[in-house]
Amino acid sequence: MANNNNKLKVMMLGGLNEIGKNIAVFEYGDDIIVIDCGLAFPDEDMLGIDLVIPDITYLVKNADKIRGIFLTHGHEDHIGALPYILRQINPPVYGTRLTLGILENKLQEEKMTDTAKLITVEAGSVIRAGAFQCEFIHVNHSIADACAIAVRTPVGTVIHTGDFKLDVSPIDGSMMDVTRLGEYGNDGVLLLMCESTNVERSGYTPSEKKIASSLEHIFLTNTDKRIVIATFSSNVHRVQQIIDASVKFGRRVAVTGRSMVNIIGAAVKLGYMKVPNNVLIDVADIGKYPPDMITIVTTGSQGEPMSALYRMAFSDHSQVELTSKDIVVLSSHAIPGNELLIGRIINELYKRGINVYHDDPEVHVSGHACQEELKLMHNLIRPKFFMPIHGEYRHLMQHKELAEFMGMDPKNIFVMNIGEVLELDSNTCKRAGSVPSGRVLIDGYGIGDVGNIVLRDRKHLSQDGLIVVVATVDIDERTIVSGPDIISRGFVYVRESEELMEEVKSIATGVLTTALDCGVTEWTQMKNSVKESLTKYLFNKTKRKPMILPVIMNV
Amino acid sequence: MANNNNKLKVMMLGGLNEIGKNIAVFEYGDDIIVIDCGLAFPDEDMLGIDLVIPDITYLVKNADKIRGIFLTHGHEDHIGALPYILRQINPPVYGTRLTLGILENKLQEEKMTDTAKLITVEAGSVIRAGAFQCEFIHVNHSIADACAIAVRTPVGTVIHTGDFKLDVSPIDGSMMDVTRLGEYGNDGVLLLMCESTNVERSGYTPSEKKIASSLEHIFLTNTDKRIVIATFSSNVHRVQQIIDASVKFGRRVAVTGRSMVNIIGAAVKLGYMKVPNNVLIDVADIGKYPPDMITIVTTGSQGEPMSALYRMAFSDHSQVELTSKDIVVLSSHAIPGNELLIGRIINELYKRGINVYHDDPEVHVSGHACQEELKLMHNLIRPKFFMPIHGEYRHLMQHKELAEFMGMDPKNIFVMNIGEVLELDSNTCKRAGSVPSGRVLIDGYGIGDVGNIVLRDRKHLSQDGLIVVVATVDIDERTIVSGPDIISRGFVYVRESEELMEEVKSIATGVLTTALDCGVTEWTQMKNSVKESLTKYLFNKTKRKPMILPVIMNV
Repeated sequence: MANNNNKLKVMMLGGLNEIGKNIAVFEYGDDIIVIDCGLAFPDEDMLGIDLVIPDITYLVKNADKIRGIFLTHGHEDHIGALPYILRQINPPVYGTRLTLGILENKLQEEKMTDTAKLITVEAGSVIRAGAFQCEFIHVNHSIADACAIAVRTPVGTVIHTGDFKLDVSPIDGSMMDVTRLGEYGNDGVLLLMCESTNVERSGYTPSEKKIASSLEHIFLTNTDKRIVIATFSSNVHRVQQIIDASVKFGRRVAVTGRSMVNIIGAAVKLGYMKVPNNVLIDVADIGKYPPDMITIVTTGSQGEPMSALYRMAFSDHSQVELTSKDIVVLSSHAIPGNELLIGRIINELYKRGINVYHDDPEVHVSGHACQEELKLMHNLIRPKFFMPIHGEYRHLMQHKELAEFMGMDPKNIFVMNIGEVLELDSNTCKRAGSVPSGRVLIDGYGIGDVGNIVLRDRKHLSQDGLIVVVATVDIDERTIVSGPDIISRGFVYVRESEELMEEVKSIATGVLTTALDCGVTEWTQMKNSVKESLTKYLFNKTKRKPMILPVIMNV
Repeated sequence: MANNNNKLKVMMLGGLNEIGKNIAVFEYGDDIIVIDCGLAFPDEDMLGIDLVIPDITYLVKNADKIRGIFLTHGHEDHIGALPYILRQINPPVYGTRLTLGILENKLQEEKMTDTAKLITVEAGSVIRAGAFQCEFIHVNHSIADACAIAVRTPVGTVIHTGDFKLDVSPIDGSMMDVTRLGEYGNDGVLLLMCESTNVERSGYTPSEKKIASSLEHIFLTNTDKRIVIATFSSNVHRVQQIIDASVKFGRRVAVTGRSMVNIIGAAVKLGYMKVPNNVLIDVADIGKYPPDMITIVTTGSQGEPMSALYRMAFSDHSQVELTSKDIVVLSSHAIPGNELLIGRIINELYKRGINVYHDDPEVHVSGHACQEELKLMHNLIRPKFFMPIHGEYRHLMQHKELAEFMGMDPKNIFVMNIGEVLELDSNTCKRAGSVPSGRVLIDGYGIGDVGNIVLRDRKHLSQDGLIVVVATVDIDERTIVSGPDIISRGFVYVRESEELMEEVKSIATGVLTTALDCGVTEWTQMKNSVKESLTKYLFNKTKRKPMILPVIMNV
């Protein structure tokens, strides 16, 4: 059989050359499975965009072949596109309890819980899905209940690490299952797909447990203050440690921020967090206790302008008012691009006389494997072929170098693009064309209705504003009947630029008069003349290029 | 005499609660002097803005009193507003040779060299200016020829540190003049104004000389490559070290990037850099040498989209084409907010197979004093009163804490706002009202013609675009004569949203018809009805709020 039916196809529809919207697709014969289905946050060029999800045209076209979506963990960049994508395809979705708990919250908000087919698994579960057999393998990460996934296929085993780190003293007592991973390695692995987030960092990522003593030190030196701690809502182990420290120092814990409330709720319900009775209190009740008996856990560690911490800092939180009797701890690290937003919060807090602990390696550790942990993974798996995933190009390339350092033949390492197909049989691996892929922009309720032209216009409008030129003409009489009137927005402060606007008007009048005199009857031509003349004039005069929008009507 | 004539007034018109546009004003009787006159870069809310300069209304009003502008060093945030401000006031400008050399370049571009009165001084120079006497005192910084300024006034001495660090092994052999500063301290200082940039960092900033061995290591391990190094153009000592390493390894040095060429030109001409003959070559001549005999020094270490490095990375540089035979070194640290732009360049370089050295503490050191150096300064000066300057609020507050740690009475420390006046005599210091201050936005040729309303409109347009509704009505006949036509930009991709646009049209028609039927003749009322109805409809339908611009004409 030389046809493609006995070949495995592996493709990433997101998560290569970018941070976020992670999604991997495996195809063999008539069977397809998907690992993860995440979103990405818009970069600064995507003006007005809320979220970015992967283009799943290929999956929609092959919807009848999809045997399941397998989730490695509950972070947005791994599950966040599901509320959009499950409207187009609806296969069973497999994930651990916490992962599905978080997903359910999201689906509830979209009223989609009735239709979605969620199936809970646990580390060690093996799911058969068409030609595939998937085993969930426990890993450590900055969210509980995270897994790598071993995909047994007819041509060999693929290990997809998800996101991971090695934590030798994990909060939940359960270290990454290096044994199971090693057993797969000993049995022989065809392809390793390994995350690359921290490949630029040497050494090992510290254990989450390191945070405990740092937190206790902060609690110890601030016994007279209320303590407000911001962290990622999904980091239930971090929150557990904050609660533990609070209990130790006799404090009650109030939680604020929608996602924090949701996730802690799910984690407690599902048993991922252990909270003694009477420790968690409603944030509405904090006034009933002296401030030095309260810890507040909040969202907003990335400076998000709608977050609880941001609202507290700017006196816009309905239940928490911060004073110099508070301290604020940012138990987090700035995601690149968020530095200025975070800085804004810190300044605002200082203005209220609040001491801020931030950017302190003692109160935050990463959830991703550094170089030595990646080497451990390569050593355990010793795959025939390797595809670095989850990273920008620089990360993928440095992960390739790391694999070469570990002894892999560069020919067996594949740095891919999204949509690009890797085709494998039990001995060979090669690039084999590509499938549709890309980004779909979410803006309000709109999914994909904003594309490059709209973004280009928004960018143009944002830089120099616009000028609308309105005139009514009589084409037959070759005269201007009314106008031109000039309306501008975002260009100059009009009241102080009357002369300039008068000049714009007179140029527009001149251009229209000339065009009418010459017998121009083509609207496009007339409008273009107005555009060109005004653009040129304004650039010479102001060095700006506002958008010019001529509106010319015939009587 | 109880009037204010024997009081010293000190005010910052910029450089407090912000990074950049540093400018200090001293007033005594009929005499005013100014220290520095810098610009700031726009923050991400200031869409389309090129630069920000201080509001100098107060100086313009008191132009006849100004006896001089004294410059501490040649960085943009200390001299960059002068080309704009010397059009409004034109007192003598005092600065060291390199500082004025850089300023002259700028003034030349604006054809202002004939009118500006530039007076060269050197460390140790004492200038009498009305009631003031200013001494320039050598400090170390990331630009050569930097000074603190001691201002003797009739009520006592003020020390303005400018920006500084202590470098005990400086490249130019000249350590910060701690002796002179100490002598002032021993004589008694009324007020210390000390920069606060690095107050959050513990310890000492390493010596610039540390870079040498790191650079040599990179040169040693890349003898087969062309080496491209990006750094701040004004850091002539850094560039000197790059040249020294190049000479040692037998490389020629080519310089690219307008500001780099300008500043290196000035530095060589003025003797601030020592370059052996035949080492500097024109970038147009790099093809005449084998790549491994070339070092290229370039701008763009902050990822600036028009910089030489950016253009090289994106194949848009007319003279330098990068290949895998190059390595790129970013001898710099990301200024907060620039991380994503820098990341974009790094990814692009990796795509060309280029190894990138970045974010490496071995190839960059700061130019600003860390905590221990700030303490040194406080120890040398031991002022009666203290005003932290050059920093966001958090920095100023932490600098206040540092001064308290050094033993100062909190009552003698003044964390001020821009425009706020500090009034001193030889024994007392108090806040005394304020003068106009703020930011003036530069957009193209426009100085100050973009204000909050224009920025608000740009922001609005950038998020959801706009919809223009055009209609001609006959008020007397109460009918719509033509339209309404709907034009949108930056809202949705119209070809795929025909139904939505039809609906918009029909709603606008309905609103206009109703208004005309009811005999509405007020344009404002008619337009507001259109705006409100469409805003409401579109938000419900799309969760977006485009700007609605109704243009309604009467026949």
